[in-house]
Amino acid sequence: MKTVQEEILYRSLRLPHRPQGKLVLLVLDGVGDIATAETRYRTPLEAASTPNLDKLAQNSAMGRMTPLLPGITPGSGPGHLGLFGYDPAVFRVDRGVIEALGLDLDLRTEDVAARANFCTVSAAGIVTDRRAGRIDSGLNRVLCEKLGAIGRIGETEVIVRHGRSHRFVLVFRGGGIAGPLPDSDPHRTGLPIRPIVADTRDGRVRRAAEVIAGFYRQAMPLLADDFPANGFLLRGIGSLPRIPGFEERFQLKAAAIARYPMYRGLAQLIGMRTLKVARDIGEQFRQYLDEFDGFDYFFIHVKGTDMAGEDGDFEGKVAVIEAVDRALPILMQKRPQVLAVTGDHSTPVALKSHSWHPQPVLLNSPVSGSDGLSRFTETCANRGSLGVFQSKYLIRLMMANAGLYGKFGA
Amino acid sequence: MKTVQEEILYRSLRLPHRPQGKLVLLVLDGVGDIATAETRYRTPLEAASTPNLDKLAQNSAMGRMTPLLPGITPGSGPGHLGLFGYDPAVFRVDRGVIEALGLDLDLRTEDVAARANFCTVSAAGIVTDRRAGRIDSGLNRVLCEKLGAIGRIGETEVIVRHGRSHRFVLVFRGGGIAGPLPDSDPHRTGLPIRPIVADTRDGRVRRAAEVIAGFYRQAMPLLADDFPANGFLLRGIGSLPRIPGFEERFQLKAAAIARYPMYRGLAQLIGMRTLKVARDIGEQFRQYLDEFDGFDYFFIHVKGTDMAGEDGDFEGKVAVIEAVDRALPILMQKRPQVLAVTGDHSTPVALKSHSWHPQPVLLNSPVSGSDGLSRFTETCANRGSLGVFQSKYLIRLMMANAGLYGKFGA
Repeated sequence: MKTVQEEILYRSLRLPHRPQGKLVLLVLDGVGDIATAETRYRTPLEAASTPNLDKLAQNSAMGRMTPLLPGITPGSGPGHLGLFGYDPAVFRVDRGVIEALGLDLDLRTEDVAARANFCTVSAAGIVTDRRAGRIDSGLNRVLCEKLGAIGRIGETEVIVRHGRSHRFVLVFRGGGIAGPLPDSDPHRTGLPIRPIVADTRDGRVRRAAEVIAGFYRQAMPLLADDFPANGFLLRGIGSLPRIPGFEERFQLKAAAIARYPMYRGLAQLIGMRTLKVARDIGEQFRQYLDEFDGFDYFFIHVKGTDMAGEDGDFEGKVAVIEAVDRALPILMQKRPQVLAVTGDHSTPVALKSHSWHPQPVLLNSPVSGSDGLSRFTETCANRGSLGVFQSKYLIRLMMANAGLYGKFGA
Repeated sequence: MKTVQEEILYRSLRLPHRPQGKLVLLVLDGVGDIATAETRYRTPLEAASTPNLDKLAQNSAMGRMTPLLPGITPGSGPGHLGLFGYDPAVFRVDRGVIEALGLDLDLRTEDVAARANFCTVSAAGIVTDRRAGRIDSGLNRVLCEKLGAIGRIGETEVIVRHGRSHRFVLVFRGGGIAGPLPDSDPHRTGLPIRPIVADTRDGRVRRAAEVIAGFYRQAMPLLADDFPANGFLLRGIGSLPRIPGFEERFQLKAAAIARYPMYRGLAQLIGMRTLKVARDIGEQFRQYLDEFDGFDYFFIHVKGTDMAGEDGDFEGKVAVIEAVDRALPILMQKRPQVLAVTGDHSTPVALKSHSWHPQPVLLNSPVSGSDGLSRFTETCANRGSLGVFQSKYLIRLMMANAGLYGKFGA
């Protein structure tokens, strides 16, 4: 069935009432993993001591989720859009937008955002190092201030925000511009910086290309003496996508309890209210208790599992899982009507990166049923009643468990 | 998502490099089976002694695959096209084309090919034996030479190529003709040979029908004295389909190590290089060792499991599985980076035919992870991390395991 048809169907069955209890999506980012000989055939979830999650699992339905399609590894943006019930193949967010949101830039619909790298350019204009020798963040800051002094190109304001190492973000604001535009990054050394050219007749996109070209003309001379950071490359140039708001789409008032900018940014993108940045998972769960009455749906995000996976740190990943498990009783002080625990994708320790392996998911409610499985692990989830399904359906299952869908047909 | 959109998505994520190791698809044709009271609730895979496959299974991800859709039983053509990553509902190949390719006939786009059987016809023109008493291959050869002497029908060249027993292939070449056409085979005895009639206004197809009817008029009198092979039946009459080449589609250089004409033909159809016909699975694995450096992807086909299934021969199927298992260490002398072991469909002994039951699949690579299952069997596969999925995705998973896909989104 086409995505649009599905959405119409689900919408037509949505009962008008608010849920009686709360729906909670607890994301342990990248929690899914693989068992290998090196890990003595255990995953971090299997190795961790998780008495509270175990008890939950024994009363839950379980399964595994494919973020998009078999074999496809998602970035964090598509991974989370799927969990929020947006097909990641349909709703795409340009990288520049995610980066800008991640640096807490308050993007507007008239903005065009780009992910930027300082790079090294030869006298002949050839890119010789796409990362400018990975200059340190301090120099980055100085260079970004220099570029920020440009201020405007015609009607368009230019905002320059430094990131880590050689990375920064450019936001072009106003003046009737729009993305997306192709990268100026040639994606390998030995080639010149690619001129920004619009491959569309859309006047707003063509204007954005002219503005960015104008910015390049003023900015490159300013960097002339800053070897190895005497140039910059742009990628993922785009505007805020038109994504239907979460509350409108699901008739659920939602709050995001996330500590990292990118996930806060993604949540804001779909209109979730973001609560203030907490110190740790215990405080995140207490925020849930404090805000319990104000929302129907809570997205609680834990980053540590993904970071440990990216670092290849098995014990670190185990420790984050155990910390979440220890804190879980705080959440349970006001037990959610429906609780889903999962990842946005797998980040196996053995791969040190996101992967395509389906992530395990646990779904608990008074009507979830129990699959008779003892723990929240990959191998238990393989035997669960939910099977392997696309993650965009998780919210539908959560809503069904909350009694929010009527019967289809007589 | 539509097939076309999916393909664009996968293509956009294909990294440009060749795989570091080899991708191997080992097909035990029709290996999937069902446990019944008659088999003491074991399948051939469960009854077989397979120490080498067991060891592999313990380090693999497993699941089951649906060739097309639930309840649909595929022929060998669609079964294999799925395994090669071509949606069998989209890419259709007439059986005559497959048989012709399998007999090493170098088909051209202006050809129409038909699968043919010698049959027995009564004086009244009624088919009394659709296989002419399964005449021997020597007589077949003589009769095919007789029919080959016809040479031309009008502008169209006629090529007659003998096969085994009562089977042969007809290729009509040139003269502005095209398929597909309905069978002349009535598909049961007691009926006359069906006249070849085009059910389309396409002039090329109508011309092909006239050519074949003309051939029948000349050929039947030539066979009049050759009882029981005094007639012939045509099936799967068609032209070469337009199928994108495997190498172009996946950027993988592929070799087929198959002993039977049909599977060689299918492989050739998508541009795989076919290696010379081996005597047994041991020699097939040695061919893989010999050709290791020349290809990225190897398709290795074992027919015996399907034949035993079709014969209802439980012990025979077990024996073929055990023979493959004994030979497996030869393959492992140069361990594939990614190895998939599966069938193109199930051929349950109890059914003596192909079936719709999802076939088990084992996927092994350094990053496949282990599902903690002890053997490559149907019941173990049911508990694997891959779940039940359409077989067209297998190659995507193999390619992901080989590190050939980039990340989707940021």
